[in-house]
Amino acid sequence: MSDSNPINNLSEIFRHFPGIGPRQARRFVYYLLSQDRFFLENLTKQIGELKKTIQQCNDCQRFFNNSYSASQSKCKICLDSSRDPSLLMVVERDIDLDAVEKSGSYRGYYFVLGGTIPILDKDPDEKIRAKLLSDLIKNKGASLEEVIVATSAHTEGDNTADYLQVFLRDMATQNGFRISLLGRGLSTGSELEYADPDTIKNALSNRH
Amino acid sequence: MSDSNPINNLSEIFRHFPGIGPRQARRFVYYLLSQDRFFLENLTKQIGELKKTIQQCNDCQRFFNNSYSASQSKCKICLDSSRDPSLLMVVERDIDLDAVEKSGSYRGYYFVLGGTIPILDKDPDEKIRAKLLSDLIKNKGASLEEVIVATSAHTEGDNTADYLQVFLRDMATQNGFRISLLGRGLSTGSELEYADPDTIKNALSNRH
Amino acid sequence: MSDSNPINNLSEIFRHFPGIGPRQARRFVYYLLSQDRFFLENLTKQIGELKKTIQQCNDCQRFFNNSYSASQSKCKICLDSSRDPSLLMVVERDIDLDAVEKSGSYRGYYFVLGGTIPILDKDPDEKIRAKLLSDLIKNKGASLEEVIVATSAHTEGDNTADYLQVFLRDMATQNGFRISLLGRGLSTGSELEYADPDTIKNALSNRH
Amino acid sequence: MSDSNPINNLSEIFRHFPGIGPRQARRFVYYLLSQDRFFLENLTKQIGELKKTIQQCNDCQRFFNNSYSASQSKCKICLDSSRDPSLLMVVERDIDLDAVEKSGSYRGYYFVLGGTIPILDKDPDEKIRAKLLSDLIKNKGASLEEVIVATSAHTEGDNTADYLQVFLRDMATQNGFRISLLGRGLSTGSELEYADPDTIKNALSNRH
Repeated sequence: MSDSNPINNLSEIFRHFPGIGPRQARRFVYYLLSQDRFFLENLTKQIGELKKTIQQCNDCQRFFNNSYSASQSKCKICLDSSRDPSLLMVVERDIDLDAVEKSGSYRGYYFVLGGTIPILDKDPDEKIRAKLLSDLIKNKGASLEEVIVATSAHTEGDNTADYLQVFLRDMATQNGFRISLLGRGLSTGSELEYADPDTIKNALSNRH
Repeated sequence: MSDSNPINNLSEIFRHFPGIGPRQARRFVYYLLSQDRFFLENLTKQIGELKKTIQQCNDCQRFFNNSYSASQSKCKICLDSSRDPSLLMVVERDIDLDAVEKSGSYRGYYFVLGGTIPILDKDPDEKIRAKLLSDLIKNKGASLEEVIVATSAHTEGDNTADYLQVFLRDMATQNGFRISLLGRGLSTGSELEYADPDTIKNALSNRH
Repeated sequence: MSDSNPINNLSEIFRHFPGIGPRQARRFVYYLLSQDRFFLENLTKQIGELKKTIQQCNDCQRFFNNSYSASQSKCKICLDSSRDPSLLMVVERDIDLDAVEKSGSYRGYYFVLGGTIPILDKDPDEKIRAKLLSDLIKNKGASLEEVIVATSAHTEGDNTADYLQVFLRDMATQNGFRISLLGRGLSTGSELEYADPDTIKNALSNRH
Repeated sequence: MSDSNPINNLSEIFRHFPGIGPRQARRFVYYLLSQDRFFLENLTKQIGELKKTIQQCNDCQRFFNNSYSASQSKCKICLDSSRDPSLLMVVERDIDLDAVEKSGSYRGYYFVLGGTIPILDKDPDEKIRAKLLSDLIKNKGASLEEVIVATSAHTEGDNTADYLQVFLRDMATQNGFRISLLGRGLSTGSELEYADPDTIKNALSNRH
């Protein structure tokens, strides 16, 4: 696919961006061509900065900006001692963590799996950071009371949750924490008439 | 709006059908014109049958087909003694009841409110069948253990649920039943990343 | 599918209406059940009126309301002598005629084919009113100067236009009228960037 | 908006890309973070190449890849002597030129305006490359027979076409070329029923 034409080369790269097709990729390139040198230099500079200043947190594994301390190995959330040490929420990706933080309804700590486990996958440990999760849990010791498995409500998310429940079972017994799952039911704005049978079933069994 | 032209008159009637705009209403009329006499006669016959054979159940107030017994005043569900008499689910409309039945996850009885109560509404009792609900609950007596308020997860549904909880409070204390609400949280298929703050909050507080 | 339950029967009928699925069909029935007797009687009355007062115009074949004169066999447009007798526009359906009339850009006469001819169809004359069209053209005689074949811009519309051009060829030569097709090109609001190759080609060859 | 966090900075830049909202901008950043060093280096390299190897054609003003000859000032299309010198198509943007080339229905030369003129704009010459267009036309001399104004079929495109027709009028008379506009009418796939009045009017006046 690569040739000596940077319009084509760059279109090809943008096509790999999440949710971008060939036409929009090409529009991106023409957009860049219409920008001045300063804009392009800033763009390449910021991309260059990414790998320099952004690193993965040793605890939660999310990407964070380490410009505030060159020697720091943990993110701001993991360093925040005012958070509830009894709670650890396991999410699929960084962007899920962002969504939960934005909701303002959680004050515990996080762990980012970095992926999900497809059904019948032969190497589940390759898809998610299972070993790093167990290391973190060991470090947390007796203060940890609950691990919230906050995977998505679809087949692959459920499969990942099932795997984690088995994976963490012995550790939970030994270390004395419980494993919980996010509540399922009607999401905000939804009507009973249009709810799928599974959601109705969950909404009923989780009634309160 | 009414004139002597049945194409216009009928279009005008179809425009009032749920979800139908002026163009589709007119297409309906041309569709009927393209059908043979038998089709139209069957249509008017079935519409005529509606009010003759369909009646409202004395108990749950839903519309049901009474062709099986001219003197029957209750629907098949309300007559089904194999259902769980300890549960009464209160839904907004007949079509919500259909959705719950189709899900196969509920075996108690129903009550159809016939509507919802808008915010700041001055005559809430005019919008829903509150009096008929209290009559039914009285009739059920001691067997009733739980009233499930299964309204939609939007502002008007929540407002209706709030009203019902106040409306039924004394009766619940006297008759010894509890009032429950459907579980809120991630609906089937949804991802954390795209969940609204309210749904994340509910998914967290209803974790299990 | 038909049983003794008019809710199911009527849902089944509404499912055949253009663009209506099973769920919306059922909502229609519940909508009718929520209406009073007067509404339903008016609906069945207007449906009954359709076949009584609406008839097909002897000339253009469109459906029209004949309440203004019991003995009238032509529609208002075909009776309107202020229209341009040199033009005859051939459209697929009544609703296409409505759209052209609403646009206010045509003052000639019409003919409604009543359908289109699928590719490779073995009985094209069964699908459209070809015989009635040639009868009308014969009646129009020397006043007719142009037949505008105004079919849709898709494969089946094009196939119908091709058929009509062959079907009318000899008559056109003998009676001295020309056969024209609607202009193809950019439709209002469209951008070159998103135009398909065929539309660009047409826009170019029809440039002016 | 700019701070020391490259995740935020880069999200902010991606938000300016055509069609990209804040959430997708952030997903782009996380996507980049999940890529290896090679991918990011290739991306910044290709962006860097853009301004180095891509230049604007002296004739048509489109962006083109000049890696094939460092001293070349014209694009491949403008250098292609097998094209029809009697035709010049004026398009709004590079991506419109791409669409016409892809359609394979045009073999003349192009000119890219670089924009459109909004209604009531006070400085139309600032919005499009009017001066460069007149320079190119002068250079083409007597070989040029037709300038095709191929703007979009919306208000701003029409306004730009109106402006160009006035702007080029005298030159057209002197140099002996005609000014044409793209054909308007039904676009491929569209049905008469759903066509707007303007499109019906155009389809009728451009019938052939």
